Amino acid sequence: MILCYKKNYRKIILCTNCLISKNKEINKRKWEDVIEVVNLLVGGIKNMICFDKESINKLDHLYRINLINSCTGFKSANLLGTIDIKGNKNLAIFSSITHLGSDPCLICFILRPKSEFRNTYDNIIEKGFFTVNHVNKNDVGDAHHTSAKYPKNVSEFDKTNLEEEFIGDFIAPYVKSSKIKLGCKYVNEYNIKENGTILVIASIEELYIDENILEDDGWLKLENAGTVAINGLDGYVETQLLNRFDYARPKKEEGG
Amino acid sequence: MILCYKKNYRKIILCTNCLISKNKEINKRKWEDVIEVVNLLVGGIKNMICFDKESINKLDHLYRINLINSCTGFKSANLLGTIDIKGNKNLAIFSSITHLGSDPCLICFILRPKSEFRNTYDNIIEKGFFTVNHVNKNDVGDAHHTSAKYPKNVSEFDKTNLEEEFIGDFIAPYVKSSKIKLGCKYVNEYNIKENGTILVIASIEELYIDENILEDDGWLKLENAGTVAINGLDGYVETQLLNRFDYARPKKEEGG
Repeated sequence: MILCYKKNYRKIILCTNCLISKNKEINKRKWEDVIEVVNLLVGGIKNMICFDKESINKLDHLYRINLINSCTGFKSANLLGTIDIKGNKNLAIFSSITHLGSDPCLICFILRPKSEFRNTYDNIIEKGFFTVNHVNKNDVGDAHHTSAKYPKNVSEFDKTNLEEEFIGDFIAPYVKSSKIKLGCKYVNEYNIKENGTILVIASIEELYIDENILEDDGWLKLENAGTVAINGLDGYVETQLLNRFDYARPKKEEGG
Repeated sequence: MILCYKKNYRKIILCTNCLISKNKEINKRKWEDVIEVVNLLVGGIKNMICFDKESINKLDHLYRINLINSCTGFKSANLLGTIDIKGNKNLAIFSSITHLGSDPCLICFILRPKSEFRNTYDNIIEKGFFTVNHVNKNDVGDAHHTSAKYPKNVSEFDKTNLEEEFIGDFIAPYVKSSKIKLGCKYVNEYNIKENGTILVIASIEELYIDENILEDDGWLKLENAGTVAINGLDGYVETQLLNRFDYARPKKEEGG
């Protein structure tokens, strides 16, 4: 089966090259032909498009980052609020904020220190604290706009309708409209040598939650916060709860 | 403002203790009173419930893991398929699979080596390869069930309706019903000393995508795959696209 697949991926490359050709004339007929041929030969993976490492490497840059950024599933949508020692504020959208542990309460996220998020990283290192604010569905346009490359002395709070909010004596700015927000403290970082990214570890110092979101057992119904998720680099989705399940235990053997 | 907040969080703790009391008698009246008092005093964060580090530390274990697992936003829902040198297969749900980079194509995820996911980790180390399979909405019950602690010689494929699928000569099992699936290779790991977790780095070796999901620019419309996201430890949500945005560029100065 793999031989058929290997024989065919060259045709798939040809096809994706058509799709991303500069004149944007997509040869739909060719694409369908290729899928048909692949399906016939590969059989077991009917109606599936296959990319292997070599074909991915040959893809156009933008096609590739769209594909690879969306293939791991949905990502969290959070705005990171920071401030530097001069008082310049910064707000930037991140899709890699992840739960790391509940005891101690830790989160982590990935950044490229030489990217547009350099301001966020520098501010976190300078001040040691930052905020994490859920993006809600009314704010997706403004939230996405925070990924534009503004100079360090320009605050994204001034370039969007997102309002800054300082709560108590926490030094970093929160996003006022955000219904779930975390005050975080920088703890450590790990250099990921495979691609030069940095994994930042932070602790949760304080947590603000709109009262309609917190359920009796501590679970937050994110749908009630209007919290969105990110699909790829630039897609924003709203959600609807399918189900909550009990803690999973092994099924008992029948007749055992 | 912070003084008011600090004065009041003790009442919030009292309240969450009521909520999680063993006899499950929730004193709603007390809860509402506390929120009212907090709102009056804190003002700026009306209708918001506040937890600080100390109050989080005093929470009941289950309440706390529900809260902290859901406060960072939505997570990806993927089934990791592995096999050991004896041929025992394993399938386990993970919510921490994250995009790490597109060039080279890397993903990462977090695991606790002493947890129920020990089998997954051992198999990945033994064989060097594993599969990542999107959970689609028809499979959420079975996907969640893979978190039950079965012995190493029991395959979750036998305990659920999820069907294994071997494609080509890739050694790890895929999930047949999954509409987006990645064949991955273990690359490296980083020990996170803050809580004893491990960050695993892996490369994408091959990628299978249902033909209705891939858009002309390489973006995958995950909604068309029925791919779900995870809310906390045990909530599964379906999604609906709100918008896709263009690459964000700074707004031009008015009158500049």
